[in-house]
Amino acid sequence: RTLRIGLIPGDGIGKEVIPAGRRILEALPASLGLKFEFINLRAGFETFEQTGAALPDETVAILKSDCDGALFGAVSSPSTAVKGYSSPIVALRKKLDLYANVRPVKSVGGAANPIDMVIVRENTEDLYVKEERTYDTPEGKVAEAIKRISQRASSRIATMAGEIALRRQKIRAAGAPSIHKGPLVTITHKSNVLSQTDGLFRSTARDALAASRFSSVAVEEQIVDSMVYKLFRQPEAYDVIVAPNLYGDILSDGAAALVGSLGLVPSANVGEGFAIGEPCHGSAPDIMGQDIANPIATLRSAALMLEFLNEEEAAALIYAAVDANLEEGKLLSPDLGGKAKTSEVIEDILRRL
Amino acid sequence: RTLRIGLIPGDGIGKEVIPAGRRILEALPASLGLKFEFINLRAGFETFEQTGAALPDETVAILKSDCDGALFGAVSSPSTAVKGYSSPIVALRKKLDLYANVRPVKSVGGAANPIDMVIVRENTEDLYVKEERTYDTPEGKVAEAIKRISQRASSRIATMAGEIALRRQKIRAAGAPSIHKGPLVTITHKSNVLSQTDGLFRSTARDALAASRFSSVAVEEQIVDSMVYKLFRQPEAYDVIVAPNLYGDILSDGAAALVGSLGLVPSANVGEGFAIGEPCHGSAPDIMGQDIANPIATLRSAALMLEFLNEEEAAALIYAAVDANLEEGKLLSPDLGGKAKTSEVIEDILRRL
Ligand SMILES: CC(C)[C@H](C(=O)O)[C@@H](O)C(=O)O
Ligand SMILES: CC(C)[C@H](C(=O)O)[C@@H](O)C(=O)O
Repeated sequence: RTLRIGLIPGDGIGKEVIPAGRRILEALPASLGLKFEFINLRAGFETFEQTGAALPDETVAILKSDCDGALFGAVSSPSTAVKGYSSPIVALRKKLDLYANVRPVKSVGGAANPIDMVIVRENTEDLYVKEERTYDTPEGKVAEAIKRISQRASSRIATMAGEIALRRQKIRAAGAPSIHKGPLVTITHKSNVLSQTDGLFRSTARDALAASRFSSVAVEEQIVDSMVYKLFRQPEAYDVIVAPNLYGDILSDGAAALVGSLGLVPSANVGEGFAIGEPCHGSAPDIMGQDIANPIATLRSAALMLEFLNEEEAAALIYAAVDANLEEGKLLSPDLGGKAKTSEVIEDILRRL
Repeated sequence: RTLRIGLIPGDGIGKEVIPAGRRILEALPASLGLKFEFINLRAGFETFEQTGAALPDETVAILKSDCDGALFGAVSSPSTAVKGYSSPIVALRKKLDLYANVRPVKSVGGAANPIDMVIVRENTEDLYVKEERTYDTPEGKVAEAIKRISQRASSRIATMAGEIALRRQKIRAAGAPSIHKGPLVTITHKSNVLSQTDGLFRSTARDALAASRFSSVAVEEQIVDSMVYKLFRQPEAYDVIVAPNLYGDILSDGAAALVGSLGLVPSANVGEGFAIGEPCHGSAPDIMGQDIANPIATLRSAALMLEFLNEEEAAALIYAAVDANLEEGKLLSPDLGGKAKTSEVIEDILRRL
């Protein structure tokens, strides 16, 4: 099988980590019978400055017609609003209907407080519809934004969360050591204030997870503020967390803090038969060009993309190579307290593949 | 001076901690020349069930006409939406124009990682305007909520944050040991996605803090997801954090997790010449009636209320008595790993006053 993968480095350290993602895919053993073709694509602030579009139509068109998946690096946001610029990754999620943002956060073997959770974030609506307006009043400007929550999107994201909980349980049952007893989905919302929008998310998620195929999955709820509190007080308790777009954004950064660095946390933007792997970190202009960015979030994002393209065996090999590097702990990038260069971390992980 | 204080216990452990707040005020030394009159007021889910109103008009009227301040306990939210019920504290904040929610989070002396920050949360708008609607589409229900950000509210909350930063610096300069070098305000927003609403919050806060009276205050920004990450990775770096309503809600629970328990964290809802002290924790129905709730958040909230009523000396005495209890660490409630009853913690703190 040949997979055609779009590569969208974006800005800053995106340009340093996406090549690492390509290399690990190329280094997968031939015995898997997997081949890759790569297509370089543009997006980001630099692209905006050069072409006037942060997400050129061509990039979207090629992803749609020619690609099975993609790797997206990171993009810089201008420090003050720039007319016509808006985040290309947010646009891409909507244009390709990549309705789920899946962010696994797992501590490395031997951690004092092991955690192993995945945040399943709705990826197309909520405040990310970006419908805003500004008007003048006698007391100054007022701006409004729409937070939109639909039954359709809430249902499919909760279903995805249920499927992921079942899949994780299957892997655990197959003997992988685990801190969890059974599959659990925690629905996060703020329906005590937003009774209609978050209320709809909550009740729809409840309904979706009441389907008989999820009968083995325990379902509970946490109000988002309390979820952040619990995330830090008892992170080991959580298995799958499902949340509307914005809470998912916030929770996944919080969870990343628990495992020591955003540089470790991957994500996949997932739609029907298509997935974009994307490290959770940003473009980090402060460290770009120094060969010190942590490539691990991208390597894991490549693996996560493969999982959603049904190449679980290939994914497992990448995860194992990354874990071996982290467990040994000799070649770590500076965000993890190490001194290794990006290139040294990559070489070490490729060697272990 | 006689201060008239409304007491609104609400539901659950609110009924156990608000009496503690009353007792500490009554126990303040006569030499301060402060007298208190207390007025018992109703609000909450139980009140809703009994009277049909979660926040009776009478409660609002008496607070407005007869009180200098108040203590609010906590209220229970129904587990599924109940027609006609909506959070009384959210309503109270708006009806009394208590535009700032001030939440100091401080570790006790000797903590391995000392932190000392205050979250200044806008308290009247954002998604808390609760303007929602639901409509049907061929693909199911869709619900929308308005997020509203005004220049007026953003400006006054940023100004409040600046004033608090200056006041904290003054106390530090007077010799209080501190982890901070100078006053710092961190503006939190998500203007990379919400360019108009959060963009307005950001630019207005910047403008307000550029006033010459804040020339000694350093100002920086954090995107909300990154703020949660940093809150956990380097909490010692933050002094005053200013945020729109919802982010402030989430950040203050996150910060509470850092000091070990929500049971320690106070808040004050502050308007012009009026303040309501309110512990950050909820009504905790699971532990009510057991005399194990931590009263400290309420005692500190009483002190915080006094600060905003310009009774800083009285406030300082309460803070010191609470800190002495925590530093000794012998009579701690179960949320802090201790075995003391609510009543024992209160007695110990009163003894130290
Ligand atoms: C860069 C930004 C628009 C984006 C988001 O908010 O989704 C990022 O924070 C993320 O989590 O991927
Ligand atoms: C109970 C709830 C409505 C409230 C809020 O969201 O403001 C609470 O979380 C708080 O922080 O005081």
